[in-house]
Order: sequence, then C-alpha cells, then structure tokens
Amino acid sequence: MAQKPSIPKGTRDFSPTEVAKRNYIFSTIRNVFETYGFQPIETPSFENSETLMGKYGDEGDRLIFKILNSGDYLNKVDETLLASKDSLKVTASISEKALRYDLTVPFARYVVQHQNEIEFPFKRYQMQPVWRADRPQKGRFREFYQCDADVVGSKGLWQEIEFVQLYDAVFSKLKLTGTTIKLNNRKILAGIAEIIGEADKLIDFTVALDKLDKIGAEGVTKEMLAKGISESAIEKVQPLFHFNGTNQEKLNQLQVLLADSVEGTNGVNDLRFVIDTIEILGLQSAHLTIDVTLARGLNYYTGAIYEVSAPKGVQMGSIGGGGRYDDLTGIFGLKDMSGVGISFGLDRIYLVLEELNLFDTVELPKPKVLFVNFGDKEAAFCMKALVKLRENNVKSELYPDSSKMKKQMNYANKREIPFVVIVGSSEIEKNKYTVKIMQTGEQQECSLEELLKITQ
Amino acid sequence: MAQKPSIPKGTRDFSPTEVAKRNYIFSTIRNVFETYGFQPIETPSFENSETLMGKYGDEGDRLIFKILNSGDYLNKVDETLLASKDSLKVTASISEKALRYDLTVPFARYVVQHQNEIEFPFKRYQMQPVWRADRPQKGRFREFYQCDADVVGSKGLWQEIEFVQLYDAVFSKLKLTGTTIKLNNRKILAGIAEIIGEADKLIDFTVALDKLDKIGAEGVTKEMLAKGISESAIEKVQPLFHFNGTNQEKLNQLQVLLADSVEGTNGVNDLRFVIDTIEILGLQSAHLTIDVTLARGLNYYTGAIYEVSAPKGVQMGSIGGGGRYDDLTGIFGLKDMSGVGISFGLDRIYLVLEELNLFDTVELPKPKVLFVNFGDKEAAFCMKALVKLRENNVKSELYPDSSKMKKQMNYANKREIPFVVIVGSSEIEKNKYTVKIMQTGEQQECSLEELLKITQ
Repeated sequence: MAQKPSIPKGTRDFSPTEVAKRNYIFSTIRNVFETYGFQPIETPSFENSETLMGKYGDEGDRLIFKILNSGDYLNKVDETLLASKDSLKVTASISEKALRYDLTVPFARYVVQHQNEIEFPFKRYQMQPVWRADRPQKGRFREFYQCDADVVGSKGLWQEIEFVQLYDAVFSKLKLTGTTIKLNNRKILAGIAEIIGEADKLIDFTVALDKLDKIGAEGVTKEMLAKGISESAIEKVQPLFHFNGTNQEKLNQLQVLLADSVEGTNGVNDLRFVIDTIEILGLQSAHLTIDVTLARGLNYYTGAIYEVSAPKGVQMGSIGGGGRYDDLTGIFGLKDMSGVGISFGLDRIYLVLEELNLFDTVELPKPKVLFVNFGDKEAAFCMKALVKLRENNVKSELYPDSSKMKKQMNYANKREIPFVVIVGSSEIEKNKYTVKIMQTGEQQECSLEELLKITQ
Repeated sequence: MAQKPSIPKGTRDFSPTEVAKRNYIFSTIRNVFETYGFQPIETPSFENSETLMGKYGDEGDRLIFKILNSGDYLNKVDETLLASKDSLKVTASISEKALRYDLTVPFARYVVQHQNEIEFPFKRYQMQPVWRADRPQKGRFREFYQCDADVVGSKGLWQEIEFVQLYDAVFSKLKLTGTTIKLNNRKILAGIAEIIGEADKLIDFTVALDKLDKIGAEGVTKEMLAKGISESAIEKVQPLFHFNGTNQEKLNQLQVLLADSVEGTNGVNDLRFVIDTIEILGLQSAHLTIDVTLARGLNYYTGAIYEVSAPKGVQMGSIGGGGRYDDLTGIFGLKDMSGVGISFGLDRIYLVLEELNLFDTVELPKPKVLFVNFGDKEAAFCMKALVKLRENNVKSELYPDSSKMKKQMNYANKREIPFVVIVGSSEIEKNKYTVKIMQTGEQQECSLEELLKITQ
C-alpha cells in the first residue's frame, strides 16, 4: 500500500512562489545588514546538548528537539534507569545532540570558540532556521527562520541607535510602512524597582504594568496590591499608568520619576540619547516610541530593549525584537563581552506582507521563454537559440517532449510564460523563429538576434 | 564552571569569509538553474519517519538521524519492549520524525502531496542541507548541502541533454574547467546482462567492471569467474575491458556488442542521441565521456546515469551525479511519473575550488567605509554621512565606541576596509570629511557629495 504523504505538524512545504517571496524578504534583510557593516556566519543545525540545555529556562529545555544517538544507543543505558521510565533522565543517556533553538546561544558559543580569529567589535548577522516543539498556531511554527544582527565587544550607544535605523530601513524597503519600534531600557525598569523600594518585586511590577492596555489603571493597581506592592510605591509610579504624550514628554516624566535612582537616571539618559539622535536623523517610515512596559526576557537584557509591532490593523505578535546583554558569552567562559542585537521574524513578516498585498513587485521564478517542441529536428534547431538566450541570462526552456501543441500552449499559459517560440520546418528552412507574445497574442518571425532583443 | 565550547562531530561553523564563498557557489548554481527554467521549492528539515525509512536501504535507515518525541515520551512505551533494549524496535516507539537524508525522497513526497497544484512537466530545484550519521572524512560531513534539479513528468531525452549542458554551464561559471561528465545508461547495463545470459549477475558484473582501473582486465576476469559468470560470457564482453577511444568509437563498439539485445540497443541509441547532440552544440569547459562502469545506485536509475568528477589532479570523490528514475513517486501513490535529475555536492565543490584557488573574485562581506569615532559630537556628524552612504548601498559603519585612534585604525587594517573617514572639530566646522584611502595612505578633505563619489 502506498503511504499517504504528509509532513510533521508545525512544518511547511514552500512552493516556488512562496520560496520567491521568502527570498525577497531574506535578500532585503541581508542587503541592509551588509550595508550596515554586518558579516554573515553560519552554525550547525544541531549543537551538543550541553550547549543548549539550561540556557532557555525549563520551558525552553522542554521545547528543544533532541536527536537520538545513532547505532545501538540502548546498549549501554542503565536498566534501572530505563525501567524508571523517567523520560527526562533517560533523554540524557540516549541523546547528546539537539536542534538549534535560537541563534543567540549558538552565536555566543561561536564567539568563544573562535575568539582568536575574530576582530572585535564583531558585527555578525545570521539567517538560519530554528526549531521549537511548541504548539503550532497562527504565526508560530515548529521550524521557522530567525534573522539576527548582533554586535559583540562594544558598550557604545551608537550601535543602539543604528539598530533603530536598521529596523526602519528594512521595513521601509519592504514597503511595510507604519511599523512601531518600541524602545525601553532595563536600567529604567531597575530604577522603578528602586523607587518601589523592593527590587525583588520588579518582575511582578512589570508583568502587571504590561497589562495596562487590557485591564486599565485600576486593574493594574489591584494586581500590584495583590502581589504585595505597597500603596505608597504604587502612588509613586502613578505617572506610568497614564504614560502618554510624545517621547520627549515621556522622557521628562521618567526623569522626574526616577530622579532619586542613579541607575534609573542613567537609563533615562541612555534612552534620551537614542531618542534625540533619531529625532535629528529622522526615520523613513517607522514610528519610534518609548514603552516602559516592554521587558522581553527581563533576566536577559541589561540595557536597551527593542520590539517591533506590525502596522495597526494587522493581527500579529511582534515581528522583531532584541536588546543589550552585558554577559553574552560568560556562560562559555569569555567574560565581560557586552553585546547588543536585534532579530527579524521572517515567517511573521511574510504573513504581514501577504495580508497587506506587499509582494506585488516580487519576480516569480518562471521562465521568460518557452520553445515549443515539435520533434527532434525542430528541437535541435531550437536548442541553438536556447544556448544563446541562456548565455545572455534569459530564463528559457524547451518543452521536454514533442507533445500536442495544445498541451504545450496550455503549459505556457498556466505558468504565465510571456514569450513562446514556435519552430516548424518552414522556420528551419528560413533560419527564423516565430515568437508569440502571449499577452497580446501577436506573432512575428524573427532572426536569432532579433529574438534575443525581444526577450531581453 | 564554564563549558568549553565545541560542536558535534562532522558539523562545521562557517566564518564570514566561508559563508561568502559558499554563497558564491550557491548563487552560481541557482542562477543557472533558473536560466534553465527550474523553479525552487523547499521542504521541512524533518519528515515523518515513515516518509524516509525504508527508502535508502538498511544502511540508509541506520544513517538517518531520528528526532526524539517531545514531552514524556516514555510514558506509553511497552515495558517489555524497553527491557529488551532492542534499539531498532524501541526507536519506532519513541521517535516519529527524522532529519532529511537527501532531497529526492522529500521531493517525491512533495510532488504527490501537491500534485493538484503542480503544472507538469515540473522542473524544480532545491538547495537545502541534508544530514547523515556517517563517519566523517575528507569531503564527507554529517550536515552538508545538496543542490538538486529534477524534471518530473517527462520521458524526453532533451532534458537529459540539457543536464549535460547545465553541469557544463555551472562549472564553467565557477571557472572550474576540465571537469569530466561521465555518462551511462541503465539500458546498456541491462543489455550487457542479457548478453551474459544471466540477468541476476548484472550487479556482480558491474561491481567487477568498476574495478578495471585498479585491478586491470585480468583481475576483473578473475573476479567475474569467481562470481560464477561463465567464460563464454566474459569472452563476449571482452571489448569492455579495453574500452577506449572517442565517444563515437565507444558507441560503435557498444552497438556491435549489444546488437542482439533490444533493450541494450535502445540504450545505445539513447546515449548516441545525447552524445551526438552535445557534439553539435558543444560544451564550454567540461569533457563528456561514456563510462559503462558507471552505475550509482543501480536499482534506482532506469535510463541516463550521470556523474561528474573534479579536474585531474584533484583528489575528491564525485562532485555531482544523477540519472533517470521511471517510478519516482510510486512509493507515495502516484504511478508512472518518470523523472530525471542531477545533484551538485556543494561542500565538495567548495573544497575543490579552495584547492585550485578559484575563489579570488569572490567579494568578501566587509564594509567599504569605516567612520572613526572621536566622541558623540563627531559621531553625530559622521552619522549624517553614514545615512547617505547607506541609502546609496555603500557598505559602511561607524566604529561603535570612541576608542583610541590607534585601536580603530588597527580594526580598519585587520578587516581590510578600503576607506577610513576621520572627522574632528575642524572638519565639523568646515562641514567636510577627511577620507583616507588605506591602500595608498593618501588623505583628502571632501564634501559629503564628494565622499559619496569616492566611495562608490
């Protein structure tokens, strides 16, 4: 019995049209990355398990795809362990490799492993798939691409400014206008914790504040009280509940609010520097806005935090994000390497562009010219022209069989091939080609040189 | 304790320079594929195990990387089965996905699954990594790329001719001259079996003949006798032991030898058609040669068989191969779909180009312009120029920190950045930029517009 073909949940096949559209996004991002001085690296699809495990929290460990050891992998496994049926513990004995979960940890591993070959500050980009055993839903897949740019070995704020410009440049080139680049700084969140008087309430506070959109100031206050944040503390940070206005107005409010916190004030100064510089330089199509609720892996970032949302009206989670981490490579033994980076979510950007019909200029991967095949003698004559056309980079093909004319024309129509060349014995005699321009139906006899001109 | 970073055996990191060189090969192959009318598809990195298992023989099944099921995967596994420690059987219970082993089986699965969306004949190409748990050695990796082009839904010989041209076009564009495209036809091998009088000796015969280079005619005769091939049969195929001369001479010998076999004669005719047509059309840099010892997965191919070897003097296995298979998709339920395809081995081609120093024209991914960073005021002034340069696609960057001049110049030197722009207070005053041309050491003061001209 033949198998009914299918693919694993959360994975996708990509048709020629989809590949072309995806490559359009990839090459747009790649060109901007390179224009900004980033260099590409690639890392293996799977890493040693110890490189990945424990780097993404318990949830991450669970979602990492593990690869079974090869050969008779059960041979040396302890029988009592097997009998226990403890999946977690057995995994360590039968699997020593795992699929890449993101690009940041492999990058950190790369930097440490190749530190002697790298010229710092190292500006690298990486565009590769990652895999997560997550529950699939709209915009969430088990195999998806990340496109990351990071700078490691510099603490400067200029790179943080450049990432705002870079986001703007990519989305503008994709004609995806009206994106919002949200910006925050971990130091501001830390400053708020200081103001509250309890540093250990930072996460509770941030989680509550993050719900402002949904539950309003009253709801947030209630949740904060429930988490044990004092009334006086909440009173102090009231301005954040009504945090509106221009970026400058927000900065001024934050400055007042965090006046008593050295770290918080540093955060406001850093943020102001980025905002002011961008205001002077201008952006092409994105909006830059301060969002103090933005945390994204709070335990990870130490300075700037970025997140990009799609234009209003498009239902989609974030299409990009990133931030600064002061100890990217410490876990692999290289201390004091500050890094800052951003990521583009290729698959979500694809869905947004599709929804907004922004793929109209993408050149689909189809030939420009089809040579009809009437038989070996005619095909041989066509082949001479085909060689010339291809030498001149004209995408062209000969129908591989001498099928009925109708079938061949049907193929040309379905694939929307703009030029069809027809060669019979009379053309061969005259050393000419009859070319049909499919859009108009117009036909003309021409020499090989003329054919080359028409189809180029 | 920090982990000492490493990557799994048989996998590789790619540095910016390596990525650039690899992309040069990828884009050369991609351009030729598209010029020949092929369209790209992509399939998931992992497939359901039943899609892959049993398709590559026992050896293949062993070398396929299996992915462990997620969650508490041992929960439902039979305890007696676990206690048996039968790795092969347990695998079926704890793993239902596996990493792609080649591109042909996923392509066959794709064709059947999407048959209603596909216009046949379907000319597709695919350039993706595959994974094999093979023992790593020179030119053999556990993660490597295949670049395949196939036509499915046509039995015509013209496509077989085009693949010879396509190989020649790719290697010529890569300046890899002197490759040998070896060509055979399964029907000729079947004809030989008929001549020998024992069809079941075909594989023994081919395996022995394949050793002609190493053990000579005498050794081959000895091995054939040992395998039970009769003396009179060996007598009959003597010409193959001294199979030299031009392709035309070989064709004539084969015609005589296989005169009594209908299938063999068909094979000679097919081969002659391809050879004759290529002789008329000509090749740019490759040699096309008939090789009757060429079998490559004998049980698989049914018509043309291709293999490409690197130029003489380069020690490397085949750098490409392929052939015709008359029942590509039958295993997934779609009968009578003839396909013919070829593959390029990216990683081996890379090694060959490296050995022959053929990467000299590859543009490395480095910026053209570095702006030295003397402080925020100077950097802000530089940033205005940077925005303009990047708008004009000039790869350029600002050193992210205001480090010592010497350190920044050292960075520019190490990365071989051709233009360094220096801006101090006097430049800001005059609204000028000082640009240093690194190769000559020459320095000049210029306006933003002049800078744009110089660096473009």
